[in-house]
Amino acid sequence: MGSQPSIFWEDIIDTGTTVLGTISVSKDEMIEYAKRYDPHDFHVDEAAAGATIYGGLIASGFHVCSLVTRVMCDSFLLDSANIGSPGIDELRWPKPVRPGDVLTIKRTLLESRPTSKPDRGLLRFLISAKNQHGETVMTMRVVNIFLRRAPSQAGDLPAAGTST
Amino acid sequence: MGSQPSIFWEDIIDTGTTVLGTISVSKDEMIEYAKRYDPHDFHVDEAAAGATIYGGLIASGFHVCSLVTRVMCDSFLLDSANIGSPGIDELRWPKPVRPGDVLTIKRTLLESRPTSKPDRGLLRFLISAKNQHGETVMTMRVVNIFLRRAPSQAGDLPAAGTST
Repeated sequence: MGSQPSIFWEDIIDTGTTVLGTISVSKDEMIEYAKRYDPHDFHVDEAAAGATIYGGLIASGFHVCSLVTRVMCDSFLLDSANIGSPGIDELRWPKPVRPGDVLTIKRTLLESRPTSKPDRGLLRFLISAKNQHGETVMTMRVVNIFLRRAPSQAGDLPAAGTST
Repeated sequence: MGSQPSIFWEDIIDTGTTVLGTISVSKDEMIEYAKRYDPHDFHVDEAAAGATIYGGLIASGFHVCSLVTRVMCDSFLLDSANIGSPGIDELRWPKPVRPGDVLTIKRTLLESRPTSKPDRGLLRFLISAKNQHGETVMTMRVVNIFLRRAPSQAGDLPAAGTST
């Protein structure tokens, strides 16, 4: 969050699906990430990967999530009052990501509601990544907590017992 | 997966919870990861992070997942017939991870079943990470597909229509 964010909870009012950006995945970076965090043959060793069911190198799943996070940061999160994420409800990697793939990242707003803290709101997004062949390679339903531009008054508070 | 894995689907028969290992989180690595993938102030800028609700630097959520993945690799995945993960059913970051934290990673087997492909089995794990204060900082319910030591015979196949 920058010191002067321009996007607060109230400002996210998507209808439909928004393209956040694209990112390309280099072989060198895939290997560098995986050597540190996920050194399976099919992520780090091009020759050995060719003999696996994938027939070549593929990106580590959490590397794909990391790359997608960067697109989310650059397209809206870094200019927002995002104060973090409590988690992800479902994450899927339905197809492998391969060196040179170009991923298009999209956002769909699933839910927006106040939280029990009057200065915060919850946003639930479906984030998807498709490759240059139109195949979905990742989906995640992620929750973010944003500060509100205008804290709620007592009358606006959600029912007692609502958490977060 | 090495060329001679010793752990196949049939070999994962945990009852209870197993400690996989521990990992420490350095400030330099936290910042290096976040500069590339998640450059929020509270992940990359120590001075600015002090002025946020966290009161200091915290690790990016997917960096925590990446570090946990490395412990999973070293403790069993790299010596197994793991052929990948279709996804994660639920991922939570209930507490921040801070520089110097030492995380203990544990595994609980939630489900083991054959898939529709006779040479494969599905494993569903609860993976948790606690810090040195005993606070849970990450949980995830992850699915992995392993090769079977002995492919099933026709009579063992799950009902038609069961997928992966």
